[in-house]
Amino acid sequence: MKVVIIGIGLIGGSFARDIKRLHPKAKIYGRDVNPAHEDEARVLGLIDETAGGRELSEADMVIVSVPVDALLVELPGILDAVGEQTVVMDAGSTKSLVCKVVENHPKRRNFLACHPIAGTEYSGPSAALDGLYEGKTQIICEVEKTAFKLQERAHDLFRDLGMRIRYMNPESHDKHIAYVSHLSHISSFMLGKTVIEMERNERDIFDMAGSGFESTVRLAKSSPAMWTPIFRQNKGNVLEILDAYIGNLEAFRDKLSNDDFNGIYQEMDNTNKIREILKGIPLNNKVK
Amino acid sequence: MKVVIIGIGLIGGSFARDIKRLHPKAKIYGRDVNPAHEDEARVLGLIDETAGGRELSEADMVIVSVPVDALLVELPGILDAVGEQTVVMDAGSTKSLVCKVVENHPKRRNFLACHPIAGTEYSGPSAALDGLYEGKTQIICEVEKTAFKLQERAHDLFRDLGMRIRYMNPESHDKHIAYVSHLSHISSFMLGKTVIEMERNERDIFDMAGSGFESTVRLAKSSPAMWTPIFRQNKGNVLEILDAYIGNLEAFRDKLSNDDFNGIYQEMDNTNKIREILKGIPLNNKVK
Repeated sequence: MKVVIIGIGLIGGSFARDIKRLHPKAKIYGRDVNPAHEDEARVLGLIDETAGGRELSEADMVIVSVPVDALLVELPGILDAVGEQTVVMDAGSTKSLVCKVVENHPKRRNFLACHPIAGTEYSGPSAALDGLYEGKTQIICEVEKTAFKLQERAHDLFRDLGMRIRYMNPESHDKHIAYVSHLSHISSFMLGKTVIEMERNERDIFDMAGSGFESTVRLAKSSPAMWTPIFRQNKGNVLEILDAYIGNLEAFRDKLSNDDFNGIYQEMDNTNKIREILKGIPLNNKVK
Repeated sequence: MKVVIIGIGLIGGSFARDIKRLHPKAKIYGRDVNPAHEDEARVLGLIDETAGGRELSEADMVIVSVPVDALLVELPGILDAVGEQTVVMDAGSTKSLVCKVVENHPKRRNFLACHPIAGTEYSGPSAALDGLYEGKTQIICEVEKTAFKLQERAHDLFRDLGMRIRYMNPESHDKHIAYVSHLSHISSFMLGKTVIEMERNERDIFDMAGSGFESTVRLAKSSPAMWTPIFRQNKGNVLEILDAYIGNLEAFRDKLSNDDFNGIYQEMDNTNKIREILKGIPLNNKVK
């Protein structure tokens, strides 16, 4: 099996680790816009060699794990370069625009639009983890537009990785992922910003921070290069949920300001049902 | 050693677990406003017996781990009941009012105002954990008002538990803990509420949620009975930081709305410095 990974960071690198383990004879080629990442990925053993055009044309599978702005630019050219029997999958956190950009591509049937719900707040080849995808959800959009045999090859990999598959149209994906992922990142970034600003002159105060603070701000470590284009591409959905969030925070603020502590109790009590919802979410086993 | 724990939930129960381990001969008495919690604590082996007035008067140490509204009501009576050589410590997440309420108490020197920065989003005796306090910060307020010998007894325990001690005045504590703890809880509760409201009719969508969502909303599982009085007692500081947070979210919203993606990138890049800050925060080893 020949696999090409374009963008060898946390996501691509984690695919590389597991493919190597599952298919010891697989040959993995990599390409990254950052030459230092290519070198690092080779040193770490994530990839065997750097990928050129020839590797693309001969690959069984191409995994494109680049920021979603680069994805829109690069994916058509990658499809141009691959062979008739190559399946190309992405891993982008937005799905409408990428499906749109290859809608009429002559090799649309070679593309499988994917979003693995997996990751950490770290990035780069050294952030890649063994078993990252185990028990995680793989969302696939417009599956009917991909050649059946190529779907099958991708599914075999996802099954071997232990992933759960969910099919969805790109618009639904983008709407709901704004709720359960993109908003969390904004909430976390702005929480980090707010506290850093308030504590600017008193750094020791972070001695007072515990695991609750860590948990709510850890996504503020995420890569701006990855997240800026996600917010750009999903602007409408993100604005909608962000407005709802700000509205709820303002309502809580007003209750507090007006000493409506029964109301505050009720808000929290009603939200405690999140316990049941969170039970179903698979977490990373090996993340620090 | 005789220890009385008033309020045998996560915090009091975790003290009980470690005291039993460190001092196998210690006798631990417990009291809880909820009789089912008293029974559960006995069955779990957290306490040996239920505590009455006599146990209070003979105790070497009394740990009061009740919600901060109950603390203000009960602490003066507890101090009335303890012996001259008993050290009484609390674990409340606000410190100004509790220090105020015992300011002129004849046994003020028996009280040590404490806030262990430790916990999880769970509550009750079954949530108690071994080693919860290891590596965590114990904030002590107005230490100079506690009898030296009683300070020493408490410090010996904290040292044996592996805690770091930080001294602070109650007003500074309440201001900064609003930043690094209370705000995180509001952010998390309102994030949970917002997403539950948006997803009301599409429950399967939580299949799309990953560890990032879980991390930012897990504090929304916290106990309303514990948190409502915290927000009440720390209203001024909480309103100040909540307003700053809402202001930052609105500024982010406006940048997104105006397609100012350079600005969004910069916001996130500047906030990435949280990485360095978070490195110093001790996390729970044994929490699910």
